Amino acid sequence: MPHPVKKRHTGCPVAFALDTFGDRWSLLIIRDIVLKGSKTYGEFLEASEGIATNVLADRLKELESAHILVKSRDPNNHRRYFYRLTEKGIDLVPVILEMIQWSAKYDPQTKARKEVLSKIESDRQGFLQEIRERLRES
Amino acid sequence: MPHPVKKRHTGCPVAFALDTFGDRWSLLIIRDIVLKGSKTYGEFLEASEGIATNVLADRLKELESAHILVKSRDPNNHRRYFYRLTEKGIDLVPVILEMIQWSAKYDPQTKARKEVLSKIESDRQGFLQEIRERLRES
Repeated sequence: MPHPVKKRHTGCPVAFALDTFGDRWSLLIIRDIVLKGSKTYGEFLEASEGIATNVLADRLKELESAHILVKSRDPNNHRRYFYRLTEKGIDLVPVILEMIQWSAKYDPQTKARKEVLSKIESDRQGFLQEIRERLRES
Repeated sequence: MPHPVKKRHTGCPVAFALDTFGDRWSLLIIRDIVLKGSKTYGEFLEASEGIATNVLADRLKELESAHILVKSRDPNNHRRYFYRLTEKGIDLVPVILEMIQWSAKYDPQTKARKEVLSKIESDRQGFLQEIRERLRES
């Protein structure tokens, strides 16, 4: 499936961000890694709201070529790959946290977890650090 | 132009955020209001990277029905409308600031302005407050 949006680099930082990870599915894949600990193609397929296999494969490839994800072989199963966030990908966590706070405030049906929200509010830097360390070790 | 992505409400705050404003054009319209002070259809058409008139009209309608924008008649020209961000829309500014910081770090061709970046880094809360006040008064 080709990307529906024509990308034109204008130097605008908001456009650059949207061009790189602003596709809905791309950010849901990143969410699954950050919040659910997903690592494999099968886990993404299960976690992301009904993502089609071809769309998933396409987005993983795009995120890899944007150096947001890296792929490595599972040492125990050479036919399976693990996907991890790079430092560039990990640096997207603050964007995701802001989205979570915004939705928690405005979505009456939100399932944002209370303990996550209170961690973001009471100790944002500490919580970010905790997530970063977990992702680097994964 | 129909929205290309099927929206399914799962309660996930990241999916909710993406469903509400995650379309590339929607966020570029919000960027134009926040950073360029755009207010009218004509200004959005000019500012947003080659947005088509039907896409612009569609996104303005969506943002209005999501209560992110409000539309009011220009008192000096009854055939023209002004678009402003609601409080719900203004609360998206932190998401945009995080995107700006991320892009400034990773886009070698970034045009993110140095004085904006240093304000975000040195006094994020004060800068946010300054933007909020400007948007409320506009």
